[in-house]
Amino acid sequence: MPIPVEAFFLTPGFRGTLQQEIQRQVADGVLRGRLRPGERMPSSRMLARHLGVSRITVTLAYTELVSGDYLYSRGRSGYFISQTAPLPAVVAPAATEARDAVDWDRRTGRRYSRHELPIKPRDWHGYPYPFIYGQADAALFDHQNWRQCAIRALGKRDFEVLTDDFYEYDDPMLIEYIARNILPRRGISARPEEILLTLGSQNALWLTAQILLVGQGRRAVVENPCYSGLRVILNQMGVVAETVDVDEGGLPPEAVPEGADLVFTTASHHCPTNATMPVDRREALLRRAEKEDFLIFEDDYEFEMSFLRSAVPSLKSLDREGRVIYAGSFSKSLFPGLRLGYLVGSARFIAEARALRAAMFRHPPGHIQRTVAYFLSQGHYDALISRLNRAYSRRRAVTEEAIVAHGLEVAGRGGFGGSSFWMRAPEGVDSAELALDLRQKGVLIEPGKVFFDPASAPSNFYRLAYSSIAQSRIPDGIALIAAAIAERGPRRPS
Amino acid sequence: MPIPVEAFFLTPGFRGTLQQEIQRQVADGVLRGRLRPGERMPSSRMLARHLGVSRITVTLAYTELVSGDYLYSRGRSGYFISQTAPLPAVVAPAATEARDAVDWDRRTGRRYSRHELPIKPRDWHGYPYPFIYGQADAALFDHQNWRQCAIRALGKRDFEVLTDDFYEYDDPMLIEYIARNILPRRGISARPEEILLTLGSQNALWLTAQILLVGQGRRAVVENPCYSGLRVILNQMGVVAETVDVDEGGLPPEAVPEGADLVFTTASHHCPTNATMPVDRREALLRRAEKEDFLIFEDDYEFEMSFLRSAVPSLKSLDREGRVIYAGSFSKSLFPGLRLGYLVGSARFIAEARALRAAMFRHPPGHIQRTVAYFLSQGHYDALISRLNRAYSRRRAVTEEAIVAHGLEVAGRGGFGGSSFWMRAPEGVDSAELALDLRQKGVLIEPGKVFFDPASAPSNFYRLAYSSIAQSRIPDGIALIAAAIAERGPRRPS
Repeated sequence: MPIPVEAFFLTPGFRGTLQQEIQRQVADGVLRGRLRPGERMPSSRMLARHLGVSRITVTLAYTELVSGDYLYSRGRSGYFISQTAPLPAVVAPAATEARDAVDWDRRTGRRYSRHELPIKPRDWHGYPYPFIYGQADAALFDHQNWRQCAIRALGKRDFEVLTDDFYEYDDPMLIEYIARNILPRRGISARPEEILLTLGSQNALWLTAQILLVGQGRRAVVENPCYSGLRVILNQMGVVAETVDVDEGGLPPEAVPEGADLVFTTASHHCPTNATMPVDRREALLRRAEKEDFLIFEDDYEFEMSFLRSAVPSLKSLDREGRVIYAGSFSKSLFPGLRLGYLVGSARFIAEARALRAAMFRHPPGHIQRTVAYFLSQGHYDALISRLNRAYSRRRAVTEEAIVAHGLEVAGRGGFGGSSFWMRAPEGVDSAELALDLRQKGVLIEPGKVFFDPASAPSNFYRLAYSSIAQSRIPDGIALIAAAIAERGPRRPS
Repeated sequence: MPIPVEAFFLTPGFRGTLQQEIQRQVADGVLRGRLRPGERMPSSRMLARHLGVSRITVTLAYTELVSGDYLYSRGRSGYFISQTAPLPAVVAPAATEARDAVDWDRRTGRRYSRHELPIKPRDWHGYPYPFIYGQADAALFDHQNWRQCAIRALGKRDFEVLTDDFYEYDDPMLIEYIARNILPRRGISARPEEILLTLGSQNALWLTAQILLVGQGRRAVVENPCYSGLRVILNQMGVVAETVDVDEGGLPPEAVPEGADLVFTTASHHCPTNATMPVDRREALLRRAEKEDFLIFEDDYEFEMSFLRSAVPSLKSLDREGRVIYAGSFSKSLFPGLRLGYLVGSARFIAEARALRAAMFRHPPGHIQRTVAYFLSQGHYDALISRLNRAYSRRRAVTEEAIVAHGLEVAGRGGFGGSSFWMRAPEGVDSAELALDLRQKGVLIEPGKVFFDPASAPSNFYRLAYSSIAQSRIPDGIALIAAAIAERGPRRPS
């Protein structure tokens, strides 16, 4: 028995996006018991027509509701209220009926929530062809040794120390390992007071922006395209960043506008195009920084995955004046749910970051820090990196072969390795629509628009990662992508 | 062979505090190999005279250096360079010699680091009489079941999910447990979209302040005294908070100045005085909030420890208009190194907090969330709370008896239980000096000045916690405190 479309309506004067309003209606119906497990939702086409919104909006809302376990999808039969949907909490009637008398828009300015993060399916494990970036393929991870290190850190001796509040400090064991064994691989020597642990590189970017870009007239420069999480941070802060188009050598130093305070770069592995900045450009960028007194944030997020060519020395290793703030992360080399990275810079800068971090959340949880310290110091980390690199190298070759066979166009392949190709669909193909279409066929790709300066963002780029998809699935997945593109637009001229 | 005092000097034009400069000199000497393991440091008295600084400054610096394992203390023989002191990292000479050409003070405004957090000894486990607040007594913790839950969350099935980046979401299992089992104990009913996990209540305070106090002329009101970590957040943001003196009923609602935007309160267990706000005051505060359109942040940090009297219903449970933002924490009931708490508020507010959290660090690490979810849902949490409450109840009785026997003065005892007494030393006794003195005797107390509005902060208060000290040590510890006070000042009139 399908739920009638009339059960849904756009609340007059609703706040937020249309998609959010649809999600809210469904979630609210479930939580209040109006919509019951097993009932069928109207088709996205019907609901879209009824509400007078685009079908994509409804489809996106349904997909998010599946992620939240309010709905499940039964192939062609459509969407149903989930049997395991969140149930209403124990309800004190007074509180549930509490009206919300606060003008939250005025109070908050929607400073943070209006800058939406890209939507990614949380249930990507369930898709047969997940070309999804930055998520971990569990099959490659050294689960057994990780578990053994975690259990060791749970042992009585460590545990008594790790349960403490460390205030603003980090686990000295982990800091020492990073200083002695990780940073030297990037040509960096740093003392403990020049290193701070962060909750992933997102957190490193955030801390740096708060320290260096708060205040009148601070000028930030970002690459175009660039990591979308950086753009969200700057938008939330109200910082208008100037953008510099990258080419096959990454950021061209001469294109950095004058008067910059802080330049963000992914010099070694440009995100998302995979370009590597040549050493002469690095030198030129540093010389400009010295001459014009600006600072550089180097996000070295994927240096471990340089399996085709040795990684070029980091910008930080060439820095003679303490101008480079360097960020590394364990998200790609271990897994992103770990939320652990590190920030390296002048002791004075790190002291600021440490004080800000202490006020924000003190420190990353102790047990996580010590587990990583063991995993690194027992050599499991290096073994894992080798295994990842061997696997990525094979997957990359298979992906590239299929790309060529199907005539897809690579826009940025990167000479070092990495975990993705940056792709260009023919003009006129909107990769966001392409991605939605492919999702129905079990294929996940990442639309590229979100990486670009919104003022001039092309719609036909997408990212194709091979870190999360099993090697054997790659050729069929690429074939499906090629077919979906062929259905939509003209083939590119060949 | 002692190191000559001449090895130390105040670098002309050094930045930061005297204490920091001394610490930096010693750490630098160790890291550059000038000071070697086993060498004896000059006595604090000698170094203080040589540098022309107060002896307390040197003592504080030495104590911090012990915490950082640069020094160790050998009783009356003094301080020595630690055998296990941090060693210089693998050094690339160019980088080490890099001059720091950046004017960091101008760049950062020292916006964050100039607001120092209170100094607490990280090595408190080594002291015989640690009356130290908010740290976990490992002897009371259910280590075995915690470990078992953590190992379960490390199992293949969970692990594959928990290694993902959750973007802005939380573990639904933990959210559901909090909604169904924790919040109802405080009279609160909340749906999942009204709850956000935070990295401890420090993080909850921080997020709330960023959302509601950024912008021109936002007026914050804090209790006096109040949690010092809150004052650090407001100072860093440049928010000048108005303070309201608390009495034995906590915050008097009529004393809240007009025009407030956000009032921070620890209504149920005032920090640090332990006062509980009576229900009529709660109603009056809420009525004023409704009438004058302000919001309330309720930090309900220790409600689990109400072993003498049932906890009074939270302010949030009486909130008819969505004006109360509520924060709870597992730092006291599990352990602070976990870094986990939760924020409850209107869905619109939580959406802001979620978006800000996503840009800051995404989410608390997945493994931590799931481990807590298991620990809660298997009933270990409730068992632990009972055990903690029984132990704290006994320790409290022993502490109170010793306090009476030695004629110490309790300034705030709280009727509910909790984990500390708020103490007043006689006029003229500086509790910061008292604490340093006592530390030499193996006793740790917490000076109270940091809790007060700096404009009018008395120096003679201190906090005496019984959560971290073994019951059998309490009487001797109190005796040592009484003796140290007697040495310093006049006995209070009796």
